[in-house]
Amino acid sequence: MVTMTNLLLSIDRAARDPLHRQVYDGLRRAILDGRLRPGDRVPPTRALAAELGVSRLPVLGAYDQLLHEGYIVGRTGSGTFVSDSLPDDALLAARPRHRAPGPPPPRDFGGLRPFRLSLPPLDQFPRALWAGLVARHARALTPERMAYGDPAGVGELRAAIAAHLRAARAMRCEPEQVIVVPGSQSALRVAAAALLRPGDRVAIEEPGYPGARAALEAAGARLVPVPVDDDGLDVAALERLRGRVRAVYVTPSHHYPLGASMSAARRMALLDWARRRDAWILEDDYDSEYRYVSRPLGALQGMDPHGRVVHVGTFSKVLFPALRVGWLVVPAGRVEAFVAAREALDLFSPTLYQHVLAEFIAEGHFGRHLRRMRATCLARRNALLAGLAAHCGGALRVQNADAGLHVATTLEDGADDEALVRRLAARGIVATALSSCCARRPGRSGLLLGFGGFPEMRISAATQVLGEVLG
Amino acid sequence: MVTMTNLLLSIDRAARDPLHRQVYDGLRRAILDGRLRPGDRVPPTRALAAELGVSRLPVLGAYDQLLHEGYIVGRTGSGTFVSDSLPDDALLAARPRHRAPGPPPPRDFGGLRPFRLSLPPLDQFPRALWAGLVARHARALTPERMAYGDPAGVGELRAAIAAHLRAARAMRCEPEQVIVVPGSQSALRVAAAALLRPGDRVAIEEPGYPGARAALEAAGARLVPVPVDDDGLDVAALERLRGRVRAVYVTPSHHYPLGASMSAARRMALLDWARRRDAWILEDDYDSEYRYVSRPLGALQGMDPHGRVVHVGTFSKVLFPALRVGWLVVPAGRVEAFVAAREALDLFSPTLYQHVLAEFIAEGHFGRHLRRMRATCLARRNALLAGLAAHCGGALRVQNADAGLHVATTLEDGADDEALVRRLAARGIVATALSSCCARRPGRSGLLLGFGGFPEMRISAATQVLGEVLG
Repeated sequence: MVTMTNLLLSIDRAARDPLHRQVYDGLRRAILDGRLRPGDRVPPTRALAAELGVSRLPVLGAYDQLLHEGYIVGRTGSGTFVSDSLPDDALLAARPRHRAPGPPPPRDFGGLRPFRLSLPPLDQFPRALWAGLVARHARALTPERMAYGDPAGVGELRAAIAAHLRAARAMRCEPEQVIVVPGSQSALRVAAAALLRPGDRVAIEEPGYPGARAALEAAGARLVPVPVDDDGLDVAALERLRGRVRAVYVTPSHHYPLGASMSAARRMALLDWARRRDAWILEDDYDSEYRYVSRPLGALQGMDPHGRVVHVGTFSKVLFPALRVGWLVVPAGRVEAFVAAREALDLFSPTLYQHVLAEFIAEGHFGRHLRRMRATCLARRNALLAGLAAHCGGALRVQNADAGLHVATTLEDGADDEALVRRLAARGIVATALSSCCARRPGRSGLLLGFGGFPEMRISAATQVLGEVLG
Repeated sequence: MVTMTNLLLSIDRAARDPLHRQVYDGLRRAILDGRLRPGDRVPPTRALAAELGVSRLPVLGAYDQLLHEGYIVGRTGSGTFVSDSLPDDALLAARPRHRAPGPPPPRDFGGLRPFRLSLPPLDQFPRALWAGLVARHARALTPERMAYGDPAGVGELRAAIAAHLRAARAMRCEPEQVIVVPGSQSALRVAAAALLRPGDRVAIEEPGYPGARAALEAAGARLVPVPVDDDGLDVAALERLRGRVRAVYVTPSHHYPLGASMSAARRMALLDWARRRDAWILEDDYDSEYRYVSRPLGALQGMDPHGRVVHVGTFSKVLFPALRVGWLVVPAGRVEAFVAAREALDLFSPTLYQHVLAEFIAEGHFGRHLRRMRATCLARRNALLAGLAAHCGGALRVQNADAGLHVATTLEDGADDEALVRRLAARGIVATALSSCCARRPGRSGLLLGFGGFPEMRISAATQVLGEVLG
């Protein structure tokens, strides 16, 4: 006799109950127990009969009975489902929950309202072109492309990224040095696993990117904040740190969150520090494609003859975040260690978008899109600066608006930026407190205002509300 | 004066050289330095002029000169590219590499040859139907779906997975308990981050799944091997371990790699151990959908009234691995800790496939596909067993073929299974050494033979080669 109480239903050929009754009892019990819920699909009779190893007749009999009693309902063309209004209301009332649970509500990220950070102009994305590429690659899905893929990424995409970085970021890299990852969080996790031991000290920018702090801490690093000024990370302060510092995390092209770009002298000093101390530089080049007041700076990686820089980048800020494609460019001698660490994280990235993206870049669509995005973001940044000047003049000081997708502003010392963020939220405005980027509290006070994701009209209107709340 | 030596090219309006000469020099130097390589796209003249902040005339002049000298070539309709045959051969000879690097060769995973493990029947996947869904969701891409998504996953997919697991795996779970992850490696990383401290001891099956070992070790766990017999993990041996064991990793539905399914008595004992010891059970349900000799067992999670089980599953074995969608079902009180750990890993999973998959399940395609896959895999498994009986009778003993996508076989004690794997590779046959699944060496000797991914004909032919190599 087979009795497996944890099964949806089981059949006992030796039992006195006829088979149709056993099927009926099993399904009814599953419904009353809530293992099958209102709206859930009931297996097709043919399939259930095959699974139970019985003929279809008793199953049809059981379904007839359940239909007759109202436990299940047939929907033309789409199958049989547990009824939304069950008969045994008395029984069901005893159970704490009995409705088919709908999807959980999505977490609130502030939606797509100004001044949500880190969003590119999603409204300007060439969706039809992209959808065409996606559809073509989806139709061309082969068993090879459906199977396990290379943890380092699809070769064509690695080559396309390397070519882009050489031309656009003055980097020196071969396709073999490029490793495709979902984004900068996982890139930092992989870098930490490949290069560091748990407990190693890693210098970070103060203030700095909280996501990097979270990723490095999750990887077991002990973080050491180092101040930032108008030339970027204070390398002299880094030099003064006592004890071994195994790596430093920097955003040299566009400091997150304050916006400075690291001066050439500081870059040389930082590279020299890394060489002398045998330390690693984790360069996060997160939105370097957007620069409004002078030509884009090349990446630190391209200036480094000693192979001490691990370069992290992402398509989230130029294409769209839900793509989940970023990259690492790693020193030539360390590729295998990085690939192994990436494999231990989550094997490899989904391949469809990698192929789509490789073609999107190779065919020149990426370069064209980037140029359009730069123009769009410049207009949006100008709308934000104009709105701030018109409505928030006295209260907010613009720190830096030379680059990127957000403007960093500061409030007078001691102002409670988190309280201000809450007051803005009550008016439908999303802002990020500068103090949330500080490892040491109380940190500097200010607002980070993202502009990339919103048309000028919305930005202007939002600055007006911002002015009212500040006023 | 702007001088940024690391840029692709820079313009100095105060310099004596005319602008067209500066553009020419800069591009030529970038080509000769290898920052622009043969085959690389050169920016359109209009775009470059805009970026440099000069009129288009000097840029056109420079391009004319470069075209004339053969540095760049125009291709009708697709733009201007660095020439494949560069003029300054003398100069170029001095550089170690100068060809445009093609994509790196993909790593060798044994390709799609028998008996590669863990592959479902990719040749039977309903590609046209799937491509239609993908194309539709790609066209329907909204800014909301392109932006940052919920780290726990798309709500509709979480609800669809929960409904599937309740009906097919007799689990008790709400959609809120389901967290979408790329696969089981990352699921274990997230579980370790949410539940364990670095250095905590985690019991694992011996032999067991090397991927789980790698993921748990990468997360800082100290692993304690516990033997497995025909009823699954030896819970009495687990009980005898001294000192605190914070969690145990098990594959109760289908032990990896030997194939046992954990008996009901063992399951109850394991749940009881976890409750008494305040420990966690990490249940990896990796290919439970395939069972050939009796009805599928429910998941351990469904038998656990105490909320000690973290359930891990994946679509890799029933749809396809390159999808990169798996899930965690976590105890109700621990959801937020898991979501935070998942966010620190790589924020969230790409959303396109999540929406496609939610519809694929809700519309009943998934259930139909699963039933077809079970029939296909049964036929393939039977072909493998028949081939082994016909060609490899004496040398290989079939350990268990009741379930899953591979058959575990054992060799006589002391046989070198890794040498055998190499000999098979030389004949074009992929096999996995059982000893590679053992934490303690020398482990048991045998071959793991995957059959899910290959038609019966190929399986039969491969068993013949296997017999020749063994003979």
